[in-house]
Amino acid sequence: MSKVIVFGIGGLSEVVSDYILADHEIVAYTVDAAYTNGGDFLSRPVVSFEPVETVYGPDEHLFIALVTRQHRTNRRLLGRVMENARGKGYRFLSHIDRSAYVSQSVEVGYNCIVSPHAIVELGASLGDGVIVRPGAYVGHHVTVGDYSYIAPCASMSGYVSIGSNVFIGNNATLRDFITIGDDAVIGAGAVVLRDVGRGAVYKAMEARLLDKTSMEIEI
Amino acid sequence: MSKVIVFGIGGLSEVVSDYILADHEIVAYTVDAAYTNGGDFLSRPVVSFEPVETVYGPDEHLFIALVTRQHRTNRRLLGRVMENARGKGYRFLSHIDRSAYVSQSVEVGYNCIVSPHAIVELGASLGDGVIVRPGAYVGHHVTVGDYSYIAPCASMSGYVSIGSNVFIGNNATLRDFITIGDDAVIGAGAVVLRDVGRGAVYKAMEARLLDKTSMEIEI
Amino acid sequence: MSKVIVFGIGGLSEVVSDYILADHEIVAYTVDAAYTNGGDFLSRPVVSFEPVETVYGPDEHLFIALVTRQHRTNRRLLGRVMENARGKGYRFLSHIDRSAYVSQSVEVGYNCIVSPHAIVELGASLGDGVIVRPGAYVGHHVTVGDYSYIAPCASMSGYVSIGSNVFIGNNATLRDFITIGDDAVIGAGAVVLRDVGRGAVYKAMEARLLDKTSMEIEI
Repeated sequence: MSKVIVFGIGGLSEVVSDYILADHEIVAYTVDAAYTNGGDFLSRPVVSFEPVETVYGPDEHLFIALVTRQHRTNRRLLGRVMENARGKGYRFLSHIDRSAYVSQSVEVGYNCIVSPHAIVELGASLGDGVIVRPGAYVGHHVTVGDYSYIAPCASMSGYVSIGSNVFIGNNATLRDFITIGDDAVIGAGAVVLRDVGRGAVYKAMEARLLDKTSMEIEI
Repeated sequence: MSKVIVFGIGGLSEVVSDYILADHEIVAYTVDAAYTNGGDFLSRPVVSFEPVETVYGPDEHLFIALVTRQHRTNRRLLGRVMENARGKGYRFLSHIDRSAYVSQSVEVGYNCIVSPHAIVELGASLGDGVIVRPGAYVGHHVTVGDYSYIAPCASMSGYVSIGSNVFIGNNATLRDFITIGDDAVIGAGAVVLRDVGRGAVYKAMEARLLDKTSMEIEI
Repeated sequence: MSKVIVFGIGGLSEVVSDYILADHEIVAYTVDAAYTNGGDFLSRPVVSFEPVETVYGPDEHLFIALVTRQHRTNRRLLGRVMENARGKGYRFLSHIDRSAYVSQSVEVGYNCIVSPHAIVELGASLGDGVIVRPGAYVGHHVTVGDYSYIAPCASMSGYVSIGSNVFIGNNATLRDFITIGDDAVIGAGAVVLRDVGRGAVYKAMEARLLDKTSMEIEI
């Protein structure tokens, strides 16, 4: 049970706080001064990032940064926050939910979240600032680069290599042995069976609308 | 450990009984008089719904209604059964499997099932008579309307809004923030990235058959 | 806590050993004489299969055979190894991970693996040598034939019938009630809504590459 400072007051912070609170005490949230709301978030104070260390000292508090939705296309912002927090003397929390399965051989970087029911198999490695959302599967010997985000139920088979700042959408499928370049975006439900270049964007084949209503079909 | 009466003797009742029995005692099954089989179901008596309360009193028994496959296109039948059961004085069982992850902040209606390994995140809400099948993911702040059915491994990301009487097929993908209208049917494996109208039916893009047999390929 | 001999020194053996070690002691690995590496695998000795029983007697050791990637297209090899091991007097280990959900009514054959967070529902049956990988969902009353392989996060709904030597890729979707013929291969992410013939190969509809980079989109 450590005392924790969370950077970020968006949806991701809200969800991840829900996991963290099973094991830790969150004492405050912090954001850049321009974004402080002058009030509370989830019943804790929201303080400005610039002098946060003078209020919640780095010797008694762990730090975790969770950037919000609008930062997704440039997850490197997370890197900048982490660098600043490190400069202030903070150590980072990485949180593995109790209901996740993570092989003991997995290497987990700083400021990572492995969510409920996620699976990370033998020989995999997660860089810094990696988020693995609920029900996602990170196969054996998969490598995930810094600041990449694995959405819920995404499934990547053995030996996949994922670059930095990558976004993998919910329930996406990556077959084994492929490589996903830095900054790539793989949309929700997308099936990817070959290598993906840097910054590339893939979109799933969407379901098609039938010309019958639900009252006219048998299911 | 409560005593429970289950309405329905189809496949869903069989599967859900398997979950419920970890925590409760099922004393009987009930169906409309026309469907009683004059015998047993899973080694319990099957009694007619019309006078069920005279045999298994509402003070000592919880009630749960599980409609069968042929009712899927009109899950409102479930509502009618629930209304009748409520009129008889029964309180409803909602069952959350021990291996499911359900945030404490989730609102769960009456007569709901959250199956093994399902996930329901922070801020989500389930109406009455909602079934969440194994391995399904109901994201944060998702709302699911009354009598909707979420099949195994279906994945819906944050802030999705699902109407009433909706069917979501197994391993379907719904991206975040979309709305699914009442009575819609989303087929197995379908990827849905935009809003879906009332009663609309969506079908997945099916895999294609290669002109090689499994003996001719490398996998 | 049994003493176990594992046939196979490939990736699957490595991953499955990680599961088995939670409950058992692995004392050695074995392969055909041509493939012994003269050394160790995961810090255990690798011995030749031909005389393995003279070193690790069948009375004190359970046996499990895990064929490697290059055997996938002909999983019957696994049957041959099992037959030989049986002839030597070995009994087989079948391993169900502690974090899997397997209904008590499920029939599990010899030399099966049910991996972490996998789900096998009521009335399902697994033949001999079946591998169910992490997060996979085997629905109620599904039958899986001998030597078939269910990759991670694959989802098959109720009453699906799967033949022998079948390969189901990761995150594939099979709708309820369909039949998959012997030796079929269903690719990663494939959605299959109808019966599949013997030896047929199905490939998913792949995601398409957009003509924008990740810096030009909103997600």
